[in-house]
Amino acid sequence: MQAVDFNSDMGEGFGPWTIGDGVDNELMGFISSANIATGFHAGDPGTMRRTVEQAKRLGVAVGAHPGFRDLVGFGRRHINAPAQELVDDMLYQLGALRELARVQGVALQHIKPHGALYMHLARDEEAARLLVENLQRLEPELLLYCMPDSAIWRIATELGQPVIREFYADREYDLSGSIVFTRNVRAYDPAQVAARVLRACQEGVVRTVEGEDLAIEFDSICLHSDTPGALALVEATRNALDGAGIQVRAPR
Amino acid sequence: MQAVDFNSDMGEGFGPWTIGDGVDNELMGFISSANIATGFHAGDPGTMRRTVEQAKRLGVAVGAHPGFRDLVGFGRRHINAPAQELVDDMLYQLGALRELARVQGVALQHIKPHGALYMHLARDEEAARLLVENLQRLEPELLLYCMPDSAIWRIATELGQPVIREFYADREYDLSGSIVFTRNVRAYDPAQVAARVLRACQEGVVRTVEGEDLAIEFDSICLHSDTPGALALVEATRNALDGAGIQVRAPR
Amino acid sequence: MQAVDFNSDMGEGFGPWTIGDGVDNELMGFISSANIATGFHAGDPGTMRRTVEQAKRLGVAVGAHPGFRDLVGFGRRHINAPAQELVDDMLYQLGALRELARVQGVALQHIKPHGALYMHLARDEEAARLLVENLQRLEPELLLYCMPDSAIWRIATELGQPVIREFYADREYDLSGSIVFTRNVRAYDPAQVAARVLRACQEGVVRTVEGEDLAIEFDSICLHSDTPGALALVEATRNALDGAGIQVRAPR
Amino acid sequence: MQAVDFNSDMGEGFGPWTIGDGVDNELMGFISSANIATGFHAGDPGTMRRTVEQAKRLGVAVGAHPGFRDLVGFGRRHINAPAQELVDDMLYQLGALRELARVQGVALQHIKPHGALYMHLARDEEAARLLVENLQRLEPELLLYCMPDSAIWRIATELGQPVIREFYADREYDLSGSIVFTRNVRAYDPAQVAARVLRACQEGVVRTVEGEDLAIEFDSICLHSDTPGALALVEATRNALDGAGIQVRAPR
Repeated sequence: MQAVDFNSDMGEGFGPWTIGDGVDNELMGFISSANIATGFHAGDPGTMRRTVEQAKRLGVAVGAHPGFRDLVGFGRRHINAPAQELVDDMLYQLGALRELARVQGVALQHIKPHGALYMHLARDEEAARLLVENLQRLEPELLLYCMPDSAIWRIATELGQPVIREFYADREYDLSGSIVFTRNVRAYDPAQVAARVLRACQEGVVRTVEGEDLAIEFDSICLHSDTPGALALVEATRNALDGAGIQVRAPR
Repeated sequence: MQAVDFNSDMGEGFGPWTIGDGVDNELMGFISSANIATGFHAGDPGTMRRTVEQAKRLGVAVGAHPGFRDLVGFGRRHINAPAQELVDDMLYQLGALRELARVQGVALQHIKPHGALYMHLARDEEAARLLVENLQRLEPELLLYCMPDSAIWRIATELGQPVIREFYADREYDLSGSIVFTRNVRAYDPAQVAARVLRACQEGVVRTVEGEDLAIEFDSICLHSDTPGALALVEATRNALDGAGIQVRAPR
Repeated sequence: MQAVDFNSDMGEGFGPWTIGDGVDNELMGFISSANIATGFHAGDPGTMRRTVEQAKRLGVAVGAHPGFRDLVGFGRRHINAPAQELVDDMLYQLGALRELARVQGVALQHIKPHGALYMHLARDEEAARLLVENLQRLEPELLLYCMPDSAIWRIATELGQPVIREFYADREYDLSGSIVFTRNVRAYDPAQVAARVLRACQEGVVRTVEGEDLAIEFDSICLHSDTPGALALVEATRNALDGAGIQVRAPR
Repeated sequence: MQAVDFNSDMGEGFGPWTIGDGVDNELMGFISSANIATGFHAGDPGTMRRTVEQAKRLGVAVGAHPGFRDLVGFGRRHINAPAQELVDDMLYQLGALRELARVQGVALQHIKPHGALYMHLARDEEAARLLVENLQRLEPELLLYCMPDSAIWRIATELGQPVIREFYADREYDLSGSIVFTRNVRAYDPAQVAARVLRACQEGVVRTVEGEDLAIEFDSICLHSDTPGALALVEATRNALDGAGIQVRAPR
């Protein structure tokens, strides 16, 4: 692998609150694509504008990170809602960020659903198809970040919406290729995470919870900004990639 | 006056709730421009999509109707917030509606702030200027609905953002040209409202609370959909305009 | 059956909005127990105070009607949350109503979870047990409205919390004894609903969706205030009960 | 002064977010009274329960800290609302905390409005009187934390609701005795804050922004947990009080 995208969730504060260690400013210096929270699970308009501003300054590509309407649960609780309702919620959030980016002369590169909504679209064919159909109508070039082999990945591929397949640096895989999402994330060791990412990039495999290797393909590394010690993880990972001569750059 | 715009606030429900008599469907048949609530004081993404859909079907022009972040107060309570915060809130809402309209092939005609935010921008020069500057950057052709001689009207005129001056069919004027906004609106008589509008269109005057006539200029008639008996008022007004040969049509 | 309780959900507006036909005032005259929405799915503090006031005036017993934190979904969407979180949410809402009742000299008679939360507690043993344990600690005499044979009914019975078993006048039963909850409720015929209730009271059976009769036991009839035409249904039902000499009265 | 109360705002997180440096756990060891956020400007039911739990463990007295319904503005933005609406909001929040405390066997010691609502009640006689009248009806012994000589202090004194007068360790005073509340708080030097508090306790004076001393009377020291470096400020202040032989204890 010569080059890879490195994405992280940004702007996940709300009003007076910042997420995790409140280190978006520093994190932004190590990544190539920022998934900006769009107000339903985190993110308020002011935070969104400032996060775009900072991404623009550092040359980081920007995407919408819409979630379930669930501030208190940070979008990590599944809500049982019809496909049309979820798609309307996502378009609302996508447009909100697009406007706050456009006023700064920034175009959106991608969309990546957040947390429980990301997992929902990985499984629910009806919602995934309705979202992709809407994206086709709105912007057939907008990149869609997703898990390889998920429902949304299959449907986007089928309908022609370009996808970016993710590798999760700070989530566990099982042999089925699934990752285990949790509402409360645990701490990781920077050197281990960096080594894991590097191995994924160079050998195309990841060690699963069952203890065996799994072959993986991906276009982007994801590391969550609210993982405890995120800054150290992101910095170590970026340094490992740089050291190995793997260029970190946004897909566009 | 040969022709005039007729605007009303639409889509002001939220989730399970509809506003006023829940007669948006019928009201839409009588007006030429719909101000669609964008989620902060009323309106949810599904309601927004459906309201755009209906406006499109009936050939009614569509605009964003952003309000203070205040569902419980329906955006009729003033919130003391800095200009940048208010403008970020408005752009967020504007973009949200734009996306839900764009996916249906509908372009926004205008923006009209709601309730206490409308009044705030009529008085607060800093917020008004910051909004207009942002609109200039985003879309210098977007129509801005406002009160003639208000702060936002002056600044928009100065900076070149096109304005649509409103006449309020269901609000009282005083001799200063101000209208009295209230959180709880009262009922009106359809024939009186229609006659008042017709007189405003034909003679350019309105009777004030002081009992004297006031000269007024305007491009659009506004009648609120949550005024009790709104449907009868809108129908009577539309019929009076039709009967007098005054065409009801959107500015664009 | 000599006497029966008749309960309905009251105060399910929010801010400027009222639910259904907005006929709480009239409905309150026909029932004996009011389940008052407590702010998470509907209901704001002012509405709660006024609803208690009205119940007090008409001699209607008052209970808390806590729901999922989901205004836009009216608490009819299931949210995947841990038991402790749901119980904390319910105690928060219970206390909020208790205070607004206490300031008017009104004591709470009961608690009845709303919508998807009601169904969740009918199935989820962990959440049901944690709620009942907390009620035991808080107020072992507080009545708990629930479905007979549900998880929460079994656990309350086991731990000694007094239960009120409900019969749903405006929901369909199947032969398993389950009712079909929907997010969007349909209209019913008043005479049919009244006859169905009367038959349940007098013969102890209800016709299921499969077309066979099901034996049922209950202490209270529930009719939803947001069912279209609720007022006619409630009035017809009350008249049928009165006509048959079955007294409508609160359990306490 | 032999003894003084030391209060701080606790539990001002929301969902995934904590306030300031996230050091409630440590802060709680130095204070005698905790003002617990009750959900409208900060605080969710789970956070409230856990904060009460911790206060109980450390023998810290507990009070309700209700704010304007304004999460994004952290209750620091004034909202123009009628007195009855504000009082309903406060009773709702008071009851919510009372229930979550009562289930743990903890009784509330006090109520202290938050941020812009605190300032509103210091000025607005109608809202202040309505609140105190309601407290008289609910619990005439509940302590009311307020600024000496404010509207709410005068009315509580007049009607017989017991008051606790506060001295603000981390806010500036002017010669009128007013303090300057800001939405964004600045950092302070621990030694200076401690010395200022000690002087206030021992000499009954504070240096104003005008550079002259102002005589002050108070029963409780307040230090905000979201002031940057709050833990160092609270620790230094507590040590200064201990060193001077001034006992830190709750009013009850």
